[in-house]
Amino acid sequence: MPGIAWGISQAHIGSVMDQSQTLPEVAHQSVRFEDGLALDCGRHLANITVAYRSYGTLNAAASNAILVCHALTGDQYVAEIHPLTGKPGWWNTVVGPGKAVDTEKYFVICANVLGGCMGSTGPRSAHDERPNEPWGTEFPAVTIQDMVRAQKLLIDHLGISRLFAVVGGSMGGMQALAWAALYPDAVFAAVPVAAAAYHSAQNIAFHEIGRQAIAADPFFYAGRYWAEGVTPERGLAVARMTAHITYVSEAALTRKFGRRLQNATDLTLLGDRFEVESYLEYQGSSFVRRFDANSYLTITRAMDLFDLAADHGGALPSAFAGSKTRFLLVSFSSDWLFPTAQSRAIARALNHVAANASFVEIMSDKGHDAFLLDEPDFHRTLSGFLAGCAEHAGLS
Amino acid sequence: MPGIAWGISQAHIGSVMDQSQTLPEVAHQSVRFEDGLALDCGRHLANITVAYRSYGTLNAAASNAILVCHALTGDQYVAEIHPLTGKPGWWNTVVGPGKAVDTEKYFVICANVLGGCMGSTGPRSAHDERPNEPWGTEFPAVTIQDMVRAQKLLIDHLGISRLFAVVGGSMGGMQALAWAALYPDAVFAAVPVAAAAYHSAQNIAFHEIGRQAIAADPFFYAGRYWAEGVTPERGLAVARMTAHITYVSEAALTRKFGRRLQNATDLTLLGDRFEVESYLEYQGSSFVRRFDANSYLTITRAMDLFDLAADHGGALPSAFAGSKTRFLLVSFSSDWLFPTAQSRAIARALNHVAANASFVEIMSDKGHDAFLLDEPDFHRTLSGFLAGCAEHAGLS
Repeated sequence: MPGIAWGISQAHIGSVMDQSQTLPEVAHQSVRFEDGLALDCGRHLANITVAYRSYGTLNAAASNAILVCHALTGDQYVAEIHPLTGKPGWWNTVVGPGKAVDTEKYFVICANVLGGCMGSTGPRSAHDERPNEPWGTEFPAVTIQDMVRAQKLLIDHLGISRLFAVVGGSMGGMQALAWAALYPDAVFAAVPVAAAAYHSAQNIAFHEIGRQAIAADPFFYAGRYWAEGVTPERGLAVARMTAHITYVSEAALTRKFGRRLQNATDLTLLGDRFEVESYLEYQGSSFVRRFDANSYLTITRAMDLFDLAADHGGALPSAFAGSKTRFLLVSFSSDWLFPTAQSRAIARALNHVAANASFVEIMSDKGHDAFLLDEPDFHRTLSGFLAGCAEHAGLS
Repeated sequence: MPGIAWGISQAHIGSVMDQSQTLPEVAHQSVRFEDGLALDCGRHLANITVAYRSYGTLNAAASNAILVCHALTGDQYVAEIHPLTGKPGWWNTVVGPGKAVDTEKYFVICANVLGGCMGSTGPRSAHDERPNEPWGTEFPAVTIQDMVRAQKLLIDHLGISRLFAVVGGSMGGMQALAWAALYPDAVFAAVPVAAAAYHSAQNIAFHEIGRQAIAADPFFYAGRYWAEGVTPERGLAVARMTAHITYVSEAALTRKFGRRLQNATDLTLLGDRFEVESYLEYQGSSFVRRFDANSYLTITRAMDLFDLAADHGGALPSAFAGSKTRFLLVSFSSDWLFPTAQSRAIARALNHVAANASFVEIMSDKGHDAFLLDEPDFHRTLSGFLAGCAEHAGLS
């Protein structure tokens, strides 16, 4: 065949398109709140559902609960096989028996965020006014704080008046910060990992590429793809690929792939493909089978809107004035998406109001993704911090 | 209207689509070489055209010529109003009367690269075997070295046996390196700016996002959009947006846009748009009016294939063994796409073979784009280096 394979496998795109359909329906454990939720944007959701998973046992005093908050493309399946992908839980490295977040000691809860697509109310849920259709792009704008308010309903429902800890990485770390700011008395300890108190211009820009790629997909149908029985998989895959690059460090990408040609027997320029390209395509295509495009738009926008200082008259310390919460801030040295400087700025704000705060930068060359990976220094730090807090909380 | 404007202006996308058409035809100054060109991929183009512009006067000895090499989305209109966009020349900051590359002293040439879309042979040119259609995606894979060979034909045609200097930034810097490696006796001085001796895994990954976005555009038609009278403008815009983010530093993006809402009177979440988003959309949409998608695929692939050490048995110094060329390597401190370490590695390779090499890192917070912008330290460095070389070359 003449011409070169521009790093674009038409066969791949074809196979993705063949699978264009709505996401599989899975029964998720959930609670429905009939009073709904008032959102930051001024609208009121008539009712909301919060899907969640829990691990371990709540003690009699309901004082050993740890809420884990997931990141942009995560969900509630923290420490068990995922019902759609069949893969291990996304934070298996951290949560489980004997691990840093020890499910033999703590009652661990994780809820799918408001706006998500794994059982909690989001763009795939029934429209308040037209219950026979999903919200789609008419789903109201939600904020990180709205997500936290939905989780608070769940925590109250479970009979927990104070969480022993809120732990999360990336967008999960934003939620941990918002929990501490909104409900200081309900959070004994907070651990924002690889997080920031606001989304930077560069972060917004990368999200915007993903949103534009989704909007440019012919199967997007202005957000009404559900009505056509298709999904904008190509656009969603490009969005995921873009995000993925921001999650890994240059060093990690090079170590994994370097410039190796995938097909070493093909010595001409025709048809050669760098390994990194097929990897990125794989990342993109596996993602579209489990994630809803309108949820991706909703959640990226929630992250972009996050600016804790702006919500407190421009002064980040004001968000934590008088807080009794114990904070552990963790950053990773090669994370260029949520760089160490962002965590350090939060630590300074906490020091400014004499809050109880520790800050640790973990040396790692794995980029933002490090919070999900095998990083013994991080796990030891987290484990030690929680043990100390448990002592202070009278849990030991 | 209910729902939020997800940072995706449907009106904008509509207006781009309305303009879907082939690029305007402009008469470019060019030379046609009837013997064609043998390419690295093993194919032979039956004939090639090289479009170029020149500024200043070639002296009687033909010894004062400076070849300027353009970057991925640049072209030959270095120092004059662009015929399509009406904007000033892309390197007006550097090239012109009394500037660092002084057109009152030097004869400055810039050619559109092979594979480009501004008059030189590329995917829009007539197919060798089917002259009534363009090459499209059947255009052979070209390399940076192929681009240089095409420029060499032009230089020979102009009666220049030795260039006083080859100067270029980004992909232009790759060409300057390839010139020095391929034709050491024809290059008195070489100035690769914000460049690298190979394209990194991360660089390839960012290019791949752009290529995937183009391929995902319904108007791409597997590269045969020209036959349909349309162009894949949405995909090309996403590609350009992605590249643009890599060209600017985080600090520059924040300084320019921060988190300001574009419409400060709109205090709800509905319809808000961060400035950075509309800027990126503008960057993307203005680009699609002057650039051909298949050229974008061709040229990004040429950059991805660049690996000067690999072409010399894995040893970069071997590329410059015995070279008499005087080198000035320039990097910018906040450039994360072609970071300082890449230029330093080239300088080390040159030192290893005792070549005449200077290396300067310019302190700047403008990212990769700094090479195009108002950077007095860079301009003074370049001017001084060229003056020193002119003395050695007997030009003063």
